[in-house]
Amino acid sequence: AWSQSFVNVPHIRWASNSSALRSDDEEKQAGKPKSEENELVHSKYWGVVPKTHLKEDGSPWPWNCFRPWETYTPDLTIDLKKHHVPENWEDKLAFWSVKALRLPTDLFFRKRYGCRAMMLETVAGVPGMVGGMMLHLRSLRRFEHSGGWIKALLEEAENERMHLMTFMEVAKPNWYERALVVMTQGVFFNAYFLFYLLAPRVAHRFVGYLEEEAIYSYTKFLEELDKGKIENVPAPAIAIDYWRLPKNATLRDVVLVVRADEAHHRDVNHYASDIRKEGKQLHEEPAPVGYH
Amino acid sequence: AWSQSFVNVPHIRWASNSSALRSDDEEKQAGKPKSEENELVHSKYWGVVPKTHLKEDGSPWPWNCFRPWETYTPDLTIDLKKHHVPENWEDKLAFWSVKALRLPTDLFFRKRYGCRAMMLETVAGVPGMVGGMMLHLRSLRRFEHSGGWIKALLEEAENERMHLMTFMEVAKPNWYERALVVMTQGVFFNAYFLFYLLAPRVAHRFVGYLEEEAIYSYTKFLEELDKGKIENVPAPAIAIDYWRLPKNATLRDVVLVVRADEAHHRDVNHYASDIRKEGKQLHEEPAPVGYH
Ligand SMILES: [Fe+2]
Ligand SMILES: [Fe+2]
Ligand SMILES: [Fe+2]
Ligand SMILES: [Fe+2]
Repeated sequence: AWSQSFVNVPHIRWASNSSALRSDDEEKQAGKPKSEENELVHSKYWGVVPKTHLKEDGSPWPWNCFRPWETYTPDLTIDLKKHHVPENWEDKLAFWSVKALRLPTDLFFRKRYGCRAMMLETVAGVPGMVGGMMLHLRSLRRFEHSGGWIKALLEEAENERMHLMTFMEVAKPNWYERALVVMTQGVFFNAYFLFYLLAPRVAHRFVGYLEEEAIYSYTKFLEELDKGKIENVPAPAIAIDYWRLPKNATLRDVVLVVRADEAHHRDVNHYASDIRKEGKQLHEEPAPVGYH
Repeated sequence: AWSQSFVNVPHIRWASNSSALRSDDEEKQAGKPKSEENELVHSKYWGVVPKTHLKEDGSPWPWNCFRPWETYTPDLTIDLKKHHVPENWEDKLAFWSVKALRLPTDLFFRKRYGCRAMMLETVAGVPGMVGGMMLHLRSLRRFEHSGGWIKALLEEAENERMHLMTFMEVAKPNWYERALVVMTQGVFFNAYFLFYLLAPRVAHRFVGYLEEEAIYSYTKFLEELDKGKIENVPAPAIAIDYWRLPKNATLRDVVLVVRADEAHHRDVNHYASDIRKEGKQLHEEPAPVGYH
């Protein structure tokens, strides 16, 4: 019953149909039921009717979740091979934790790289959010500047979330995958929260290694695409707009830009760990805001 | 000993001297100690040396914590008198909780509005961050779009943090005020986290009422400035850059723009509560991103 009914549950309305992300105006033309009229009155009372934006071709901007100026073309020339050689036992702990987590993941997904990407991106969005929040609270509590690191980490979290929004257009989770994601988040959010509270340096190193593995998995994904084992379907509309891809872009182009994003996250997190290793707080070095 | 030694503690290095927020280049010219050279090597290995930016007058952008395109001129014509009349018992709970919290706050600060602003902004930065994080986790967990609300709430949190960064330039906390802030955050963060988990609609209403009180307090602050009871000192450099104020702006100009920000937060949070009251999720209505 679960797997059949979930398409009707309101909370996944966007997930199943990206064209549902219409602008407010379009919804008005479509004829609103009574309750939505009430809501419009409220929105007008508070004066917060959002600005509408246009695409470069003049058509209305279809996404509420990101604006035209948040799109970018990732640097595909980034070095995919960079690696931090573990230098002390904390580094080794971070490195081997990631390797240990890789094992069951490989067994579970095998060669289903699309499904793997979708599932793992639900986890990848957690560390940046936790780190950004902790630095924000620290800044408030200690009357101290952030050096831009709150923003850098929140940008990483948002970027990972956009990976998820993209992959869920090409791979749909079934009910037990959804249940697994909910449980994994419950465990991972709390574990990473504690981890970041107690040892932020090791936490950033851990994410650095996680990203190194992500690069490896996306490279495997590309190989399967090139071998024809996974169908190279057209890129979802959201990906074309977010990464400024050509209109005829394919899944392969999407995996290439996502992999470049992961390499950027790897750099930011290893760098953050390096700063802390020198006994400094992150805000003592300017953050790589907008580093893609 | 606490109050005398805290200026030497590294974690408040920025707090006591905003010119310490120099660009990387300036630091290099100033001659770096050995450890910072190591760090530069790391930063170069990871390739994350941040871009430098320029002010409109061509001088280097001095802030790491916000970039030129994040500055804005708030809409000072915003209606300061808007109020949500409590409609049900949840609204009344939110309204009277805020009124009850006001009492001890008034007794503690009396007419010290500068100190009050600085202390309360350490709390004001919490709800937006908690709400934004919860929506982010929900989006990941349920494979659903955000409608821009994660960003809208995180922007509110960042804006409140900038209020703090501004007021701490004109009022310095002493050791027991610092201790009070740490304890208050410990209680408030956990309380609001639970509150938002269990009843997000009431949580947003609560913040809406909190902002109504903030507007009232900043109006009182302005009255004291106009009566000459509080000295109308020059605006801090950070405020002039963040709100694009004229170079000769004063504390009065700062309080005016901050009060307008609070009115915007009031609108966003009452609106969010209204959406949830209609039985909808926030992402079903486009969020007011960049609403100042
Ligand atoms: Fe990712
Ligand atoms: Fe990543
Ligand atoms: Fe504020
Ligand atoms: Fe506020």
